[in-house]
Amino acid sequence: MQRWVAAVAYHGAAYSGWQRQPDAVTVQGCVEQALSVVADHAITVTCAGRTDSGVHAQGQIIHFDSSAKRDSRQWLLGVNTHLPSTIGLLWVLPITADFDARFSATARHYIYVINNSQVPNPLMREHALWEGRSLDCDVLAQVGVSWLGEQDFSSFRDSQCQAQHPRRRLLDWSVSTRGDFIFLHVVANAFLHHMVRNMVGVALRIAMHKKPVVWAKEVLLARDRSCADVTVSACGLYLHRVYYPELYQRDFPQLGASLWW
Amino acid sequence: MQRWVAAVAYHGAAYSGWQRQPDAVTVQGCVEQALSVVADHAITVTCAGRTDSGVHAQGQIIHFDSSAKRDSRQWLLGVNTHLPSTIGLLWVLPITADFDARFSATARHYIYVINNSQVPNPLMREHALWEGRSLDCDVLAQVGVSWLGEQDFSSFRDSQCQAQHPRRRLLDWSVSTRGDFIFLHVVANAFLHHMVRNMVGVALRIAMHKKPVVWAKEVLLARDRSCADVTVSACGLYLHRVYYPELYQRDFPQLGASLWW
Repeated sequence: MQRWVAAVAYHGAAYSGWQRQPDAVTVQGCVEQALSVVADHAITVTCAGRTDSGVHAQGQIIHFDSSAKRDSRQWLLGVNTHLPSTIGLLWVLPITADFDARFSATARHYIYVINNSQVPNPLMREHALWEGRSLDCDVLAQVGVSWLGEQDFSSFRDSQCQAQHPRRRLLDWSVSTRGDFIFLHVVANAFLHHMVRNMVGVALRIAMHKKPVVWAKEVLLARDRSCADVTVSACGLYLHRVYYPELYQRDFPQLGASLWW
Repeated sequence: MQRWVAAVAYHGAAYSGWQRQPDAVTVQGCVEQALSVVADHAITVTCAGRTDSGVHAQGQIIHFDSSAKRDSRQWLLGVNTHLPSTIGLLWVLPITADFDARFSATARHYIYVINNSQVPNPLMREHALWEGRSLDCDVLAQVGVSWLGEQDFSSFRDSQCQAQHPRRRLLDWSVSTRGDFIFLHVVANAFLHHMVRNMVGVALRIAMHKKPVVWAKEVLLARDRSCADVTVSACGLYLHRVYYPELYQRDFPQLGASLWW
């Protein structure tokens, strides 16, 4: 048996999320099917972050075990041949059996993309949330300050969340822009179900000047989901990168600079 | 009667090109239908560049005449309400009756987007041509030098082209990059049918070092379509901008910097 690690990118619109389901097309289902064809035996994969329906990924990380004699290039090109065009492996590498895509990960980096213009950009309808009301980017950056560090994020936790406790460590919250597009970077050790999208809902309300910046802290401290705001659309959310201890990560190929950020 | 000018953006994948057809969904058909609803009378539009099936636009320019009493904002928001999400008006302005979106235009600016990486980016499959073989960007920029100026572009002209003559004036051919993506800017006073996509076919062959740079000039001088290469996919082509005399253009809203270039 050899353990393998791979990076996967996908456009989430066509899939019922990451996790395998008996009666729905999911990213995990497609990746496992393609890997199993190339391996010629059934393969199960573990991912770093189980993204929801409609959420995209640029650098989802997975691991899997196989007894098949294949090299990195054979996995990469073979599996991509058997995947739909909206899912693709970016690289595949052999790794030691102690590596676990989920439990070895030290942080997840999500980006939320907002098309902030009077009329939506028709070329990006499936790639960004459109918000026609003006957003104050300085305020958007300030919103996260009171959320940084280890906190109880119950206010941003979906009622379906299966995590054992609501404490997570928020490592970064920052904003960049390009033309009419705003990129909101959110990095944490791990995330609760719908946590990014619920945080963005509160942040947008404040960035429209409908609530003061201090409301962000009030919502956090309330530890009550009903105090927050709507869960924003999945179409703007990207799992951008997953971080691992240097021991593993030093061998991972650097992904080329992205088209967007 | 008032004449109006508008900018239109669209993602071309879902449409059988710009031009209205009785039995196909086209961009012109959708735009005319939406305008006619808002005007409450039948409206016909004229565009600057009749894009092919699958080609995108960021700044297509149209004009239309209407007796309806509407202001710019009413047209913009009203028409967008009646358009599919992959087509949108960006702005609408009243203009003098001597303006013609097609005949007043002095130049058209197209951008061809290439995803040049070992494996394709699954997030951009409908937004760029994927080319897995390495492309030499310096060579790609050199290819257009011998095509600049007024030339007989018969070698890049589709057999279906209805233009009266094959002479066009190529004003710019330049290359920029971002991450794994290459943007090829092509500006001319006007274009023959499939001209950009046929030029890019030749340019890519040379940028792969399969032909010398001088082949670009040889193909041009042959004035024979069979000497060139394949017509590359429409999915990478964008009508980026249309240029008009300053008399008209000074009033056109500046579009925000795009997400990509």
